[in-house]
Amino acid sequence: MKTFSLLRSAAWLLVICSSLQARANTAYADDSTHQEKYVLVIHGGAGTILKKNMTAQKEAAYKAGLEEALKTGYNALQAGKSSLDAVEATIRVLEDNPLFNAGKGAVFTHDGRNEMDAAIMNGKTLEAGSVAGVSTIRNPISAARAVMEKSEHVMMAGRGAEQFAKEAGLEIVDPSYFRTEERWEGLQKALKADSMKSRLDHSYQPAGKLGVENIDNKFGTVGCVALDKAGNLAAGTSTGGMTNKKYGRIGDAPIIGAGTYANNNTVAVSCTGWGEFFIRSVVAYDLSALMAYKGLTVQEAGKAVIEKVGTLGGNGGLIALDKNGRAALPFNTEGMYRGMVTAEGKITIEIYK
Amino acid sequence: MKTFSLLRSAAWLLVICSSLQARANTAYADDSTHQEKYVLVIHGGAGTILKKNMTAQKEAAYKAGLEEALKTGYNALQAGKSSLDAVEATIRVLEDNPLFNAGKGAVFTHDGRNEMDAAIMNGKTLEAGSVAGVSTIRNPISAARAVMEKSEHVMMAGRGAEQFAKEAGLEIVDPSYFRTEERWEGLQKALKADSMKSRLDHSYQPAGKLGVENIDNKFGTVGCVALDKAGNLAAGTSTGGMTNKKYGRIGDAPIIGAGTYANNNTVAVSCTGWGEFFIRSVVAYDLSALMAYKGLTVQEAGKAVIEKVGTLGGNGGLIALDKNGRAALPFNTEGMYRGMVTAEGKITIEIYK
Repeated sequence: MKTFSLLRSAAWLLVICSSLQARANTAYADDSTHQEKYVLVIHGGAGTILKKNMTAQKEAAYKAGLEEALKTGYNALQAGKSSLDAVEATIRVLEDNPLFNAGKGAVFTHDGRNEMDAAIMNGKTLEAGSVAGVSTIRNPISAARAVMEKSEHVMMAGRGAEQFAKEAGLEIVDPSYFRTEERWEGLQKALKADSMKSRLDHSYQPAGKLGVENIDNKFGTVGCVALDKAGNLAAGTSTGGMTNKKYGRIGDAPIIGAGTYANNNTVAVSCTGWGEFFIRSVVAYDLSALMAYKGLTVQEAGKAVIEKVGTLGGNGGLIALDKNGRAALPFNTEGMYRGMVTAEGKITIEIYK
Repeated sequence: MKTFSLLRSAAWLLVICSSLQARANTAYADDSTHQEKYVLVIHGGAGTILKKNMTAQKEAAYKAGLEEALKTGYNALQAGKSSLDAVEATIRVLEDNPLFNAGKGAVFTHDGRNEMDAAIMNGKTLEAGSVAGVSTIRNPISAARAVMEKSEHVMMAGRGAEQFAKEAGLEIVDPSYFRTEERWEGLQKALKADSMKSRLDHSYQPAGKLGVENIDNKFGTVGCVALDKAGNLAAGTSTGGMTNKKYGRIGDAPIIGAGTYANNNTVAVSCTGWGEFFIRSVVAYDLSALMAYKGLTVQEAGKAVIEKVGTLGGNGGLIALDKNGRAALPFNTEGMYRGMVTAEGKITIEIYK
C-alpha cells in the first residue's frame, strides 16, 4: 500500500513537472508569430536600421533584394534540391547584390581593401567549410562550400584560400569588382572619425587599444538557413566584416559554432552583429546546445543567446530554423533585414523592430 | 494527511534521484585518478606516440620539457599571479622548446614555411584573443593575449596579425628562427609520400580532393589550463598546425569554442588532435555546455566530447580543469604528452595510454 501510494504520488509529481514545462514552452510560443512550417529564412544584417533614416526607394530596393534571394532559395527547395544547394544559391544572390555587406558591396578595410569571410555547414553530416580574408573570389559562400567538399580542411584564410578557390574552378575576379562608392565613402567617414578621435579625445590611446571602434560600421552580414524536403538542415553566412577593420581581423561569420552552425538533430543558425561578442559567446552552437541539452524551443534558445551577447555588451541578431521548420529571428539592435518563406511559398519580409 | 503523504513521498523521490545522481558521478570519479585539487594542467600534443618508437633519451627530453613548463606555471600561481599569466608563461616555455609543434619547432607548411596559430581565454571575463597563420612572432600565445587585451578584436590572421604584434611591442623574429632539422625532414617525408601517392594510387584525385591527408602529421599542439588562487580559470593553446598543410589552412587551436575555451562557471579546456573534427564538433565549448546544461562532471563531459569526435572519424585529446580543480585528460590516440600539478606542487607527467 505504501509503495503504491509512493508510485502514485511520484506519477502525480511527474505530471505537475511536465505540465509546468509545457506551459513554459507554450508561453514562449505564443509570443512568436513564427510557428508555421518555414523552409528558408534569411538575414541581410542587423544594426542601427531606423525607418526615419530610410527613403522609400532604398527600403523598396532592400525588400526587392531580400525577396529575390528568398525566391531563389525557395525554387531550389521546390525543385527537390538540398538545403545546402538552397543556402548557397540564396547567399550568392545576396553577395551579388551591392546593397548588402557581402561579395559585391562589401565594406572596406582600413587599408582600402575588401576582405571577405564566409562559412557553410551541412546539418546532416556536420561537415563544414569556411574562408576568411579573401579578396578575389566572386562568391565567398561557394568557396566555403568547395573547402567543405573538395578539401580535407574546414577553414582556409587569405591567399591560400584564394589559391584553393582558383584550383577548385571558382570564378576569380579583380579585387575592384567588389568596390561600391557608398562603401568607399563609408570608409572615408570612418577614417575621418578615427583621426578626429585621436586628435580631440585625450583619453584615446592608440598605443593601448590598437583596434578600432566602429559601433555603427560592423553590421550587414548576410545569412541563410534552410530545411529541405528530405528533412536536412543547412546554414550559411557571408560578410565583408567591419568597415575600417585592421590587422587581418576575423569576425564570427566564418567560425563554425560562433556565426554559423547546423545540426539535423537540433537547428540551423546564422548570426549577424558585433562579431567579437558572438565569438566569445559561441552563439550558434550555444543555441543548438540549449535545445539539445536543456530542451529549450528554438525561440527560447534564440532569445537566451542574444540576451547573453547583450549581457557581455554586444549586439546583433540571428536567424534559426529547427528540424520541424519553426523559426526564430531574435535581435537586440534597432533593426535586422530579414525574410522567411513557408513550405507553401508564403513570403514575409521585415526590416524594423 | 493525503497532502503530507504526498510531500513525504515527493521528498523521498528527490532523495532517491539525488543519490542516483551522486552514485553516477562517483562511479566516474572512481575511474579517474584526477580527483585531487589540480591548479595547472598541460598537454604537448596527442597522436601515434608509442613506447616502442621512443628512445629513453627522447622520452627523458620530453618529460624534462613538460616538467619545466609545469614548474613555470606553478611558480606563477604560487606567487599569486593570475591563471592568465600562468597559462601564458607555461605555453611560452613549450613554444620555446623545439620538441613541441608550437613556436620554435613548429611543423612546416607545404610551401616550406612555419605558420602558427594560438589562442587564449579568460574564464572570469570571457574575453579571448587569437592569432592565425603568423610567421614572425616569437611567442604566438603572447600575441593572442595582446589581441585580447590591446585591441577591440578577438581574432587576427596573417600579416595583419604580425603587424599588430609588432605595434604591441612583442618580440619579432626572422622566420628562420622557427626552423628545426627534424621538422624539415618531416616535411620532405610528407611531400615524398604525397608525390608517391599521386603516382601510385589511382584512386588519388588531387583535382577532387585538393587538401592533403597526413594522418600522422597533424598532432603536437601544446596547451595549458589553470586555476588561480582567486578561483579564476584560463585556457591557452598554441600550434604549428599540420605538417604539409596548404592553402592557409586554419585548425581548431585559434578558434574559441573549438580548440580553446574558458568560463569560470564551468571549465577551462585546451584541445589537440585532428583540428577539422574538433571544429565541426565545437569540442571545447561543448564540454562546457554539457557541464552547464546537463550537470555532467568534467570527466563525464570530457569523455563524451572525445567520443563524439571519434564518432565523426576524428581523433585527438584534450585537457580540462573545472572550477573546483578537478581535471580530465581524455584522448583516443595512442598517447598524449601531458602533465599536471596539484595545489601542493605535486607533479605528474604521462605520455602513453
